Amino acid sequence: MRAVCVIGLGLIGGSVLRAAVRAGRPGWAATTSEEDAAAARTAGYEVVESTEQALRLAAEWEALVVLATPLPAVGGVLRQVARHAPETYLTDVVSVAEPVRRQVRELAPSARYAGGHPMAGNAGSGWDAGGAGLFDRALWAVSADEDTTLDAWREAAALALDCGARVVPVSAGEHDAAVARVSHLPHVLAAVLAAVGADGGPLALSLAAGSFRDATRVIGSDPELVRSMTEGNRAALLDALDDTLGRLGAARGSLASTGSLNSTVRSGHQARGLLEQRHGTAGVRHAVPLDGEHAVRRLREVGENGGFVVALDGAEATAELPVPG
Amino acid sequence: MRAVCVIGLGLIGGSVLRAAVRAGRPGWAATTSEEDAAAARTAGYEVVESTEQALRLAAEWEALVVLATPLPAVGGVLRQVARHAPETYLTDVVSVAEPVRRQVRELAPSARYAGGHPMAGNAGSGWDAGGAGLFDRALWAVSADEDTTLDAWREAAALALDCGARVVPVSAGEHDAAVARVSHLPHVLAAVLAAVGADGGPLALSLAAGSFRDATRVIGSDPELVRSMTEGNRAALLDALDDTLGRLGAARGSLASTGSLNSTVRSGHQARGLLEQRHGTAGVRHAVPLDGEHAVRRLREVGENGGFVVALDGAEATAELPVPG
Repeated sequence: MRAVCVIGLGLIGGSVLRAAVRAGRPGWAATTSEEDAAAARTAGYEVVESTEQALRLAAEWEALVVLATPLPAVGGVLRQVARHAPETYLTDVVSVAEPVRRQVRELAPSARYAGGHPMAGNAGSGWDAGGAGLFDRALWAVSADEDTTLDAWREAAALALDCGARVVPVSAGEHDAAVARVSHLPHVLAAVLAAVGADGGPLALSLAAGSFRDATRVIGSDPELVRSMTEGNRAALLDALDDTLGRLGAARGSLASTGSLNSTVRSGHQARGLLEQRHGTAGVRHAVPLDGEHAVRRLREVGENGGFVVALDGAEATAELPVPG
Repeated sequence: MRAVCVIGLGLIGGSVLRAAVRAGRPGWAATTSEEDAAAARTAGYEVVESTEQALRLAAEWEALVVLATPLPAVGGVLRQVARHAPETYLTDVVSVAEPVRRQVRELAPSARYAGGHPMAGNAGSGWDAGGAGLFDRALWAVSADEDTTLDAWREAAALALDCGARVVPVSAGEHDAAVARVSHLPHVLAAVLAAVGADGGPLALSLAAGSFRDATRVIGSDPELVRSMTEGNRAALLDALDDTLGRLGAARGSLASTGSLNSTVRSGHQARGLLEQRHGTAGVRHAVPLDGEHAVRRLREVGENGGFVVALDGAEATAELPVPG
């Protein structure tokens, strides 16, 4: 099994190291956080002294390097990749795809790269918030663009599968548009809702029950991480915010003029039903051949249709697609 | 212990009946839902044939009548209250205060009324979704307006305490303004978010993880109940929506012009911290004397300061107030 070299030991990076080692892979890490390094070492994991040392080891072992830093730190790490492990297998768990992909092409163009994004987390941050089971049965996007090579995609996807996740093949642009809607927008709305609630004073906060608590949970996360994630996906998030402002303004207008929220409530309820249906039903399995020049495109179609890959072998991927509704 | 007569056996009404009986009170109910009636009878509860019969029993037993129907049905029940139990003790669990209060004054003006609103629920509806423990340690607003008599307030509050809740004394107007922000607005935002997510197609829904699921949970509830609750609090909800549109528009503008969501993320994170602090710390207990003409006003101040009542005896209420931050 290919070794993993994880750069960054926060919630996600720390969980990747633990899950990969749980799966039997050799693994080591580097982090600029002395606190995370100390906690990981205490738990028995190998944390080397510097990113440079970690990357030299990666070159020597032909490891898969996993970028697990916040977006603003990615460029610095990529410059070191180009210096110490220029042709390494490389993936990331940074949560936005297109900005990382652009920097890889610019700064570490020889790396065998396929971007990644595990759709898992919690309100915590740092090594202590993570665990080897964080990705069990979660979805994990692995970028499949025009210029993604099948072997780079396969390495990134195999790590996700070893970590217990199911793999959604997706282009970087489609990934960013989708997560703007279902991950970054919820963070912005949680922030706005929390502030509007607190504006109601102590009485409002004391009357806040499950609906308010659930809907504001994610803005309890580290503000710097929320900023780097949302601001890093600026263009796609602006589109999602415009759709939201349009729908919310229409709800406001309808309530003010006719007293009705029928259209807003119905469409929201229906959409929530689609989500429950999507996550509640078993899919149909089929094989995706991994040979030939169209393999990456065929994989991408699995993701576009709402499906994911559950297993890989030499010749094919096993994909699960939703049952048509 | 005073008997309770519950009109409506949905999630909240059905839970009130069970919790009151668990506390040792005699109790019976009426409902227009044959399904809820059959389920309650099967579970061993007394469900009489009609609202009229339930209210006649209430007059005979000097019971506390609990209105537990959706808002649109309240007027019809109140007309029957005026006919069959005009001077009954009366409270409600309808979720908006001012519209119910207005109808009580108009349609059943002799009833000894104090409005109520338990801040508890789940995404289900109907008898089967409820349980005797639904209100344990939940907050339960009991209206304390200028025209609320102490004995009516005491009866409504005693029921809430018997159901395991803590009582927030609050004027109808302040109640409606607060729940617009922390309960009704979350439902509208959940509806809008669910729709914007579903607009992203199968890929977006398949990538939706905890943040999207938590933030859209409440719009899985029965659309008619969501509508009657949100539309019933129109004026206060419009204020909350305007604040939301303002903050969301500012976030959009800042992201578009400077690329920063700093102000939005910081203020939201800080507000969420206030909520966690509020719900995470034990309060300071003190006694509120229940004699004299200012008793209701003194109770109301407890709620305005973010506190609640945990016990009542003949002479005083025991209130718990948050520790100053």
